[in-house]
Amino acid sequence: MLFERIESEGLAHYSYLIGSDKEAAVIDPRRDVQVYLDIANRHGYRIRYILETHRNEDYLVGSAELAARSGAQVWHADRQWDYQYGKATRDNQEFPLGRLMLSAMETPGHTPGSFSYVLREKESPLMVFTGDCLFAGEVGRVDLLGTDQTQALAADLFDSIFNRLLPLGDGTIVLPAHGAGSVCGSAISDRLYTTIGLERRLNPRLQYSDKAEFVKNVARDLEKPPYFAQMEVANLAGTALLPRIPDPTPLSPHDFNISMPGSVILDTRQQSFGAAHVPGSISIWLGGVSSFAGWFLPYDTPVLLVNETDDVMPVVRQLVRMGYDNIAGYLSGGILAWHKAGFDTESVNMVSVPQLCRCLDSGEEAWILDVRSEEELRESDSIPGAQNIHITQILQHTGEIPKDRRVFVFCGSGLRSMIAASLLQQRGWKNLSVVLGGFSAWASVTRPLTSKKKA
Amino acid sequence: MLFERIESEGLAHYSYLIGSDKEAAVIDPRRDVQVYLDIANRHGYRIRYILETHRNEDYLVGSAELAARSGAQVWHADRQWDYQYGKATRDNQEFPLGRLMLSAMETPGHTPGSFSYVLREKESPLMVFTGDCLFAGEVGRVDLLGTDQTQALAADLFDSIFNRLLPLGDGTIVLPAHGAGSVCGSAISDRLYTTIGLERRLNPRLQYSDKAEFVKNVARDLEKPPYFAQMEVANLAGTALLPRIPDPTPLSPHDFNISMPGSVILDTRQQSFGAAHVPGSISIWLGGVSSFAGWFLPYDTPVLLVNETDDVMPVVRQLVRMGYDNIAGYLSGGILAWHKAGFDTESVNMVSVPQLCRCLDSGEEAWILDVRSEEELRESDSIPGAQNIHITQILQHTGEIPKDRRVFVFCGSGLRSMIAASLLQQRGWKNLSVVLGGFSAWASVTRPLTSKKKA
Amino acid sequence: MLFERIESEGLAHYSYLIGSDKEAAVIDPRRDVQVYLDIANRHGYRIRYILETHRNEDYLVGSAELAARSGAQVWHADRQWDYQYGKATRDNQEFPLGRLMLSAMETPGHTPGSFSYVLREKESPLMVFTGDCLFAGEVGRVDLLGTDQTQALAADLFDSIFNRLLPLGDGTIVLPAHGAGSVCGSAISDRLYTTIGLERRLNPRLQYSDKAEFVKNVARDLEKPPYFAQMEVANLAGTALLPRIPDPTPLSPHDFNISMPGSVILDTRQQSFGAAHVPGSISIWLGGVSSFAGWFLPYDTPVLLVNETDDVMPVVRQLVRMGYDNIAGYLSGGILAWHKAGFDTESVNMVSVPQLCRCLDSGEEAWILDVRSEEELRESDSIPGAQNIHITQILQHTGEIPKDRRVFVFCGSGLRSMIAASLLQQRGWKNLSVVLGGFSAWASVTRPLTSKKKA
Amino acid sequence: MLFERIESEGLAHYSYLIGSDKEAAVIDPRRDVQVYLDIANRHGYRIRYILETHRNEDYLVGSAELAARSGAQVWHADRQWDYQYGKATRDNQEFPLGRLMLSAMETPGHTPGSFSYVLREKESPLMVFTGDCLFAGEVGRVDLLGTDQTQALAADLFDSIFNRLLPLGDGTIVLPAHGAGSVCGSAISDRLYTTIGLERRLNPRLQYSDKAEFVKNVARDLEKPPYFAQMEVANLAGTALLPRIPDPTPLSPHDFNISMPGSVILDTRQQSFGAAHVPGSISIWLGGVSSFAGWFLPYDTPVLLVNETDDVMPVVRQLVRMGYDNIAGYLSGGILAWHKAGFDTESVNMVSVPQLCRCLDSGEEAWILDVRSEEELRESDSIPGAQNIHITQILQHTGEIPKDRRVFVFCGSGLRSMIAASLLQQRGWKNLSVVLGGFSAWASVTRPLTSKKKA
Repeated sequence: MLFERIESEGLAHYSYLIGSDKEAAVIDPRRDVQVYLDIANRHGYRIRYILETHRNEDYLVGSAELAARSGAQVWHADRQWDYQYGKATRDNQEFPLGRLMLSAMETPGHTPGSFSYVLREKESPLMVFTGDCLFAGEVGRVDLLGTDQTQALAADLFDSIFNRLLPLGDGTIVLPAHGAGSVCGSAISDRLYTTIGLERRLNPRLQYSDKAEFVKNVARDLEKPPYFAQMEVANLAGTALLPRIPDPTPLSPHDFNISMPGSVILDTRQQSFGAAHVPGSISIWLGGVSSFAGWFLPYDTPVLLVNETDDVMPVVRQLVRMGYDNIAGYLSGGILAWHKAGFDTESVNMVSVPQLCRCLDSGEEAWILDVRSEEELRESDSIPGAQNIHITQILQHTGEIPKDRRVFVFCGSGLRSMIAASLLQQRGWKNLSVVLGGFSAWASVTRPLTSKKKA
Repeated sequence: MLFERIESEGLAHYSYLIGSDKEAAVIDPRRDVQVYLDIANRHGYRIRYILETHRNEDYLVGSAELAARSGAQVWHADRQWDYQYGKATRDNQEFPLGRLMLSAMETPGHTPGSFSYVLREKESPLMVFTGDCLFAGEVGRVDLLGTDQTQALAADLFDSIFNRLLPLGDGTIVLPAHGAGSVCGSAISDRLYTTIGLERRLNPRLQYSDKAEFVKNVARDLEKPPYFAQMEVANLAGTALLPRIPDPTPLSPHDFNISMPGSVILDTRQQSFGAAHVPGSISIWLGGVSSFAGWFLPYDTPVLLVNETDDVMPVVRQLVRMGYDNIAGYLSGGILAWHKAGFDTESVNMVSVPQLCRCLDSGEEAWILDVRSEEELRESDSIPGAQNIHITQILQHTGEIPKDRRVFVFCGSGLRSMIAASLLQQRGWKNLSVVLGGFSAWASVTRPLTSKKKA
Repeated sequence: MLFERIESEGLAHYSYLIGSDKEAAVIDPRRDVQVYLDIANRHGYRIRYILETHRNEDYLVGSAELAARSGAQVWHADRQWDYQYGKATRDNQEFPLGRLMLSAMETPGHTPGSFSYVLREKESPLMVFTGDCLFAGEVGRVDLLGTDQTQALAADLFDSIFNRLLPLGDGTIVLPAHGAGSVCGSAISDRLYTTIGLERRLNPRLQYSDKAEFVKNVARDLEKPPYFAQMEVANLAGTALLPRIPDPTPLSPHDFNISMPGSVILDTRQQSFGAAHVPGSISIWLGGVSSFAGWFLPYDTPVLLVNETDDVMPVVRQLVRMGYDNIAGYLSGGILAWHKAGFDTESVNMVSVPQLCRCLDSGEEAWILDVRSEEELRESDSIPGAQNIHITQILQHTGEIPKDRRVFVFCGSGLRSMIAASLLQQRGWKNLSVVLGGFSAWASVTRPLTSKKKA
Repeated sequence: MLFERIESEGLAHYSYLIGSDKEAAVIDPRRDVQVYLDIANRHGYRIRYILETHRNEDYLVGSAELAARSGAQVWHADRQWDYQYGKATRDNQEFPLGRLMLSAMETPGHTPGSFSYVLREKESPLMVFTGDCLFAGEVGRVDLLGTDQTQALAADLFDSIFNRLLPLGDGTIVLPAHGAGSVCGSAISDRLYTTIGLERRLNPRLQYSDKAEFVKNVARDLEKPPYFAQMEVANLAGTALLPRIPDPTPLSPHDFNISMPGSVILDTRQQSFGAAHVPGSISIWLGGVSSFAGWFLPYDTPVLLVNETDDVMPVVRQLVRMGYDNIAGYLSGGILAWHKAGFDTESVNMVSVPQLCRCLDSGEEAWILDVRSEEELRESDSIPGAQNIHITQILQHTGEIPKDRRVFVFCGSGLRSMIAASLLQQRGWKNLSVVLGGFSAWASVTRPLTSKKKA
């Protein structure tokens, strides 16, 4: 038996290579498919099937690419949509893999035609690949087709989970398309492996065995990053083949400076962005690119990259998986080269929570912006006096943020605050302070301070 | 959550690094422990506990080494024996790991004081590390303490599995100390991940829910490789620290030749061993070293290595994990260097099954030696006229093998036959033929030939 | 300063990446160009120029590919030929690289329009990239355009070396396009770095400072592998872009067997080829593929690969660099899978030199075939009674080799003999014995035997 | 022939592995010797000799370690000192390596008993390993034994270079123990390979062919980092064996905080150190650790490490090569974890040169501290009004730096300034600004500003 889970970092996307007796299937391949071919070749396995659990919306699927390179057949879920390549999977369709059998199980809900795939040894279900239907500790979202369909899809999801997946039995291993950190389910648990039994017991959504209650709980409208629309179209059409991850062009500070007009500058450093950055650049720390680039980077503008060093391949990989192919170059020598060339910079003030407390205690009149999500706010204390605008909605609500007072920006840790600060700075805000450590720091020190303030 | 399974190839031994919130435990570490430290450091985890599931008999445990390097505490199972380092685990002892809890569960059977370790999130058991108590598709062997204790240990094993492990619930993921290919359980399945539910359903040993029947089925006497005794002693004493895998010395053909007297020569090539090899060398193909070196390599004699190329580190790693530290060197430049130096060689005849059939059809009087195990023979057809001596017992039964007739040596694939042939050749047999592809090939072609022979 | 020599193993081809202050040039890139982009990106260098020293005949140049990926300009040598891309270099043309200067120096001889490139710091020549003009211990061959031009090109080569390269001064480092082992110069020394001074002193060809003597010595007709013609055409046209090394398809023994008709089978193992191989396959050991595939593999036939294991990428890389893109697949599981499937095999007898001597001493009537080159024969003793046919010419001289006697095949080490044996076996020879260790072994043991025979 | 140059980054130290026909020598091995054994084993070479060019003062030599692991013999230079292991090399001593010959050539000057090693093919010198006698573009320093011996050693160095090395001939390749960036020669050129001829022509020191003038030019007293004394003693005694690079312990912010008293904290980030750092930490960016740790880190105090991420092995390697073995741990999760734990931080203000200019133009009364070396100042314009204290001397001159005015700290690029700022901040300075891009930036923009200021 061959089994490998391939994680696309940042996206928290899981794809799988599964096989037996030299025959393999890949489930939900990402766009840069070399990894699947390498594993298969290392073990002498031939990839026979490329199986999609649904039309993906959060990344470009590599099915067409992998088919072209491996000779495998592509099988799509969501046959209600019009794919320009591959074939439509049917419920209960079987895909033999050596002495094991993979079979399709229609599990609508996340999308109207989502599929799961069950791997059986003889008649026993060993594993089920659940796509975006069932995660560790969470279920798939059902709001992607619009408010009018949310209820119906939630009801479908209930049936899929309770009538099809759970009956596979507690012992079946559940292998979803996403892990903790995905934009596809904010409450996904960090259990790295799970089972039907564990989900039945631990997944909060599965505690509603009454269908109406389940629907009520699950049929929420969530945010949909604008880039999803782009992905949906591309995944139907079959993304342009990507022979390899593109090579970004190193640009001297001078060439970089010339390329800036008409480009968007993405800087993936953390606190050193605040220390000094190329004027006009957007901050998204490396680990956050997959989650946030889709909100703030346009597709029709070349992207310029800035990092501490010349190593920009990790960010390029994340961007390319989301279809950002127009990467115009990167700052050769990293930010130090920019400084040495004597170009001007901008900075964002940063404060630690103890410093913030001293400011507040001293009576400084400040405006506190908390860019965490509603969900996070629900689950934690809030910061007294803070205004909440979720980071993803910040550009729609700039009118609410004062320019004439010092604005302290909070998030969970200080990373998303820097995104917000960079976006506001671009738009003319000058008196911004990012709170280092964010709410996490606040929670660590607040009690004594609160009591002090009370006193 | 941090979870990594570390496989020691050849041994089919699984150890585990498990953690949460920067605190980690390692279960049954192997002797070369760098891998655990590297993973922990990459994620900033501190190793707090080193947990053994039992006194290991098939490899040198790295607990003392890892403790010295990480500062973690060693906790032994099998407290009835006298360890010279570390502490004894108690039943239900708890080892907190961040927000998760690992707790000890005494599961005797394989040894009298074996432990499993259960990882819980709140109260729910997520995973259980079962050591050599329960494998995928198999249970631990109970015969290692001698025939007189086999029945009692089998009864213990029944209780451990049925009264302690199975009650954890079908959804709990089962993580044993060995996978398919281990000398610790010949019938281990190649399911790469399993659960209590899957074992309850698919494990043939667990179909006997009657204790007496279970005991009858499980209390068999199996072979015990001679090196087990060596491992047991060393694992109690605390193996000498191994700062790193030793560097083998490259030897010119001339120096190699000089070193040969008083050494044992291990050649890890496959068919090319048959083609030509250094006289007197033992053949064990690379993948078989962990399984077979313990039967045929003495501990008190220096080992010389021969391979196709200079790359001998994979075999060195396997040997060192079994305590063979006295590696005198390897043939620099591989076997080609030996040939170019004009030294003499020996060879072993090899035949394909079609060739063998032609021989047999032509009436050649041959003696067929089948070195497969009883278990394999039970599960497959046998070869008409073949004599069976299991490869591990061959040196005790040389008297049964004729020297004056051509001997065809069979195994499953042709690899173990070459071990047998090399051992017999050392002892003076000259007319040996290894059957390429072994029984597997025989099974593929036998029917038409049989009918032909009938005709 | 950035300087890296990239060696393409097998080909013994050297290409170079050279740069200063973030500007780089690549000299004679190979077809799989990822390596240049990786090095350049790691250091933040931009590749500005792609410089060819001559129209290469022994491999596919990666200039077009690298230009497409880096945006650099291609500059060709040999402007007398009609390139379909890039521009023609002019003598003394300058290519600034930061504070260093690379300048073109026309050095005809190997081809009529060959160039060297001189790297200068201020006015001092630091390095000279000599292409196939001057190697360590050898000069470029001048016979590639045909016998009628050999004399004239040799005279040109004399002028290029004595009047242009040597005047650069003894201290200049010489960086040629090939190292020891190349098909482009059999006498290339294994000095890994050299200088004008060392060549002036140690290169045997440079000891003829009289032009007429130099020409006489150098203007020899050498063998020209048939694939050179293919490379010359492709390198003018601009090879089809190669986005990456192709993925070979794993084939089960059954599928492999079906694919065999109409394909050529290349087996890259060493002695184990002799032990047993797929009937009809050609033996070229891995390290010899670049040197010998061009003689024996047709371009218009799909290639099937056989190795010990599934790892065939090293041979694929070598083949692709020579333009063999039609690789139909490889035997999944290696030769062992073939044996286990029970398919028939062939073998080639192998003897060590001591065994051979015993045969000869016993009066066996044998025919000895020595497949070494004339050059090798000149430089060593010969084997008494051996017939010489160079391995590359073997197919043209099969008529001279008897089928009715045992044929012992000799080369330097036993590797090329196996090629010869496989080719002869394909054509019906049955009684072939490859001499292990070849002449090298013979030379180690022959004297006592000779005296014995005399006695 | 086998030739590999092993660079220890940061130190800019070059060691060499050189061999022929399976016999190798290592010249000036570093302390972590695995790399030599790996290369030798990969090629099947046996290390026969470990040769030192002098008693090293800038790093711990790995001779004893490598001898213990390879069985090779250690040969020391500087026989006037009392080594507790190995043997003393004699002038002209020969070390045969296959068909090549390495011979010792006494070349005193840098130390009284320094040796070079000449590699010859037959009689021709191919390469010379010059240790700290002759570098690319520089010669070894002669002031390490104290002012009274400088003149005499400079005279010896003249003889060694002019009478022993240069006569080897222009074509000989020169392989020194250091490249550009070493603390052993600030003016070492970045020519990656050089020859006697190139040095004769381009090395500024070699332009004085008159001995007296040479001595006058070369016999300067340079700075001697305090750790040199420690290295000299250890290299005579034979450093304690280092089985492997030690594993640093990950510490939670809480544990880190507890470990701080009695430890020194080394933070290897660049600008983000300025943004926010653990109070009391010393800044040395990663690339500067080998050059500056020896000035500011005591040997008798445990070191705690802070980086952006958990990856601290590169800094550990640099420290261990300098004998800093007492590494108490590192901040798990990087600086972000510190922030999230809500601990207090300090920061250093940073300004770009344009910002600085605006400050100065606005009449702000500032004190400008330039921490570059005398040598750098000689070779470039200075900054008007700046006070110079070399970074290495800063702690001896704190009295000259005002605490009551804003201090702008300048170096070449902004990296060393941050070291200075961190040291001053530890000692109570509060109003410090590091100039981003340093003099390099200043030089890029100063002219227009100067003229503006003039106007």
